[in-house]
Amino acid sequence: MKALTSGLCAARGFQAGAAAAGVKQAGTTRLDCALIVSDRPCQMAGVFTTNRVFAAPVRYCREIRERGHARAFLVNSGNANACTGDQGYADTLAMASRAGELLSIPAEEICVSSTGVIGVPMPMDRVMKGIEGCAAALSTEGSAQAAQAIMTTDTRPKELACEVVLSSGTVRLGGIAKGSGMIDPTMATMLAFLTTDASIEAALLQKLLKEAADDSFNCICVDNDMSTNDTLMILANGASDTEPLEEGSADYKLFAEALKSLCVSLARELVLDGEGATKFITITVEGAQDRASARQIAASIARSQLCKTAFYGGDANWGRIVCAAGYAGVPFDPDRSDLYIQGVHVFQDGRPLPDKDEEVQPLMAEPELTVRLCLQEGTASGHYWTSDLSTDYVKINADYRT
Amino acid sequence: MKALTSGLCAARGFQAGAAAAGVKQAGTTRLDCALIVSDRPCQMAGVFTTNRVFAAPVRYCREIRERGHARAFLVNSGNANACTGDQGYADTLAMASRAGELLSIPAEEICVSSTGVIGVPMPMDRVMKGIEGCAAALSTEGSAQAAQAIMTTDTRPKELACEVVLSSGTVRLGGIAKGSGMIDPTMATMLAFLTTDASIEAALLQKLLKEAADDSFNCICVDNDMSTNDTLMILANGASDTEPLEEGSADYKLFAEALKSLCVSLARELVLDGEGATKFITITVEGAQDRASARQIAASIARSQLCKTAFYGGDANWGRIVCAAGYAGVPFDPDRSDLYIQGVHVFQDGRPLPDKDEEVQPLMAEPELTVRLCLQEGTASGHYWTSDLSTDYVKINADYRT
Repeated sequence: MKALTSGLCAARGFQAGAAAAGVKQAGTTRLDCALIVSDRPCQMAGVFTTNRVFAAPVRYCREIRERGHARAFLVNSGNANACTGDQGYADTLAMASRAGELLSIPAEEICVSSTGVIGVPMPMDRVMKGIEGCAAALSTEGSAQAAQAIMTTDTRPKELACEVVLSSGTVRLGGIAKGSGMIDPTMATMLAFLTTDASIEAALLQKLLKEAADDSFNCICVDNDMSTNDTLMILANGASDTEPLEEGSADYKLFAEALKSLCVSLARELVLDGEGATKFITITVEGAQDRASARQIAASIARSQLCKTAFYGGDANWGRIVCAAGYAGVPFDPDRSDLYIQGVHVFQDGRPLPDKDEEVQPLMAEPELTVRLCLQEGTASGHYWTSDLSTDYVKINADYRT
Repeated sequence: MKALTSGLCAARGFQAGAAAAGVKQAGTTRLDCALIVSDRPCQMAGVFTTNRVFAAPVRYCREIRERGHARAFLVNSGNANACTGDQGYADTLAMASRAGELLSIPAEEICVSSTGVIGVPMPMDRVMKGIEGCAAALSTEGSAQAAQAIMTTDTRPKELACEVVLSSGTVRLGGIAKGSGMIDPTMATMLAFLTTDASIEAALLQKLLKEAADDSFNCICVDNDMSTNDTLMILANGASDTEPLEEGSADYKLFAEALKSLCVSLARELVLDGEGATKFITITVEGAQDRASARQIAASIARSQLCKTAFYGGDANWGRIVCAAGYAGVPFDPDRSDLYIQGVHVFQDGRPLPDKDEEVQPLMAEPELTVRLCLQEGTASGHYWTSDLSTDYVKINADYRT
């Protein structure tokens, strides 16, 4: 597996384009509309928010996933098209229809995603012009602009690509993602779009995507709020001319590994760019009875406001960490637990180890922190990635609409 | 039911005293040790944290609850005596033993509670002096000082009392509570101590206390972190010379109502004094299938960082509220839901109502906010109380230990 530039367009047969439609802010040149298109039919897979309140484009893309084939992603930022009723769904269809016309592709093969403010009708005049702008801008150099166009409170675009050498040739994978706040995917994800020129059937692709999401986007949180629009989708167009991937084969495993690796990298990017975040923290729980238990304890620590403010303050507050583990709802014996912060053994057998504060405290100034909790309940482990909770997070979110 | 002054000592036969032991801060006159004693044996009931990691005094008080009788509360602030291993439990026993000596009461009738920093050994020399100071200070005027002594990051003491006229005479109930951060009791509560001179058997008292906690301390959150020390205990000494309360009687119902009312008032005080809080928000969910579902949706909104920062910013951000309801894990149809903020109908049938922003926005400056979500799934309702999330909350908790 080798890293590549050119993001989404690293995969053969894909083009991308972006435009400033004025959805984010009328009359500016801020990119807010993106189009990613394959030159041939693709197998499509996707995972979506499990929120009962979900946006019109999520409903629409779920229908596409049922069919399992598509050819393009159309995305706008600045408006989530959520809580917009029947009109919202009609607007999504109209967006797909316009893009289909311009690209000479059936409308039902255009996946549509939206992100931004909830409950505001889509400014369709502007959106339509944006779609035209995107179509005109399509090129194999367009991925960086697409990554820019899907941002909301993100401070930087997230774009990655890699290639994997399979037995029948080389395949490429590309991806872009956005997300900075309202991040606690829990079985879904923020907006992320992946492309590959591998040859793989939709059902199998769906299985792999679900597994990759579970180990990447479903292991992160910024603020424990699950979005109405969380979406991760992939298009596979087979343009690599490699053999179709078959479940269980060596090539299948190589591809699955690359897909997961790409998702993990993009998910980490979301946390690194979390709203107001100043630190990136990896929580690992070892010695659990099973993976779900390990993950649940790690998530409890990752979501704790008190742990997150302590990380922000550079405080190796192991007491809050052990406390958050304690209320995760998973049985374990604190008196047989060990805790390591930044690799320093700070807690053993239910008690803090003496004089460890002075050792660990200077290490808390690092931008990346590690917390490792070792139970003695079994052999399974799990992890979670989180950001710290800063005064800037509160400022960003207190002022979002007003 | 009538409000009374004199807090814990409103109930006949109770005295309280406090002292500055230097546990909070050595060498200062800040009260940090409190003792509340009945002049005769009491029935005792208590509910405690459900955190797997719980403090030594919680373990000790659970043992007292099994027996159901006690005569005193001994409380220190500044040190939680949590994650302190066997030494912590020995220290709790030593505290009870010293108080028992001074009061000529068996040590096993002294309930001990601690609150403050986790994982630091109790400074027993100072604590012992504090206990002596408390015993010397005991009086029927001592409740206010006791309420002061149990505070940590609280900015004000919480103390209440009331009387209820029963068929066989008048009984009194008093209470003090502390709690400002690490508040998400979920089946338990922060530190709260109640007294009554009613005559009631321990098992019945436990049932009533559990019910009262469920509708009060278990309906609040400040920061979703459940403490290792959450404790709510009550002593009933029968000094009112009224008839023993019998389950289901009219007197029993009056007493239950008063107990619940006292708990609700104290719980609200905790939220009002939540760390960094500038607003008090009542979340009500109506038209749910059952009470647990209503409560679960209300809690999801109450815990949402995005809702809480919006409340802080005075933003009537109904989108975040509906979104948080959506991920509560309870099925409901957003397209048949109505949302009222500050009494203004802002959301109907899955969509925002036009021009409501201008109507509701000025009302968001109020210190108390109401959010009412009406489903059409059933007839049950539930509520939750929460504070807003401010930049001060982050500052308070980033700097707690360092």
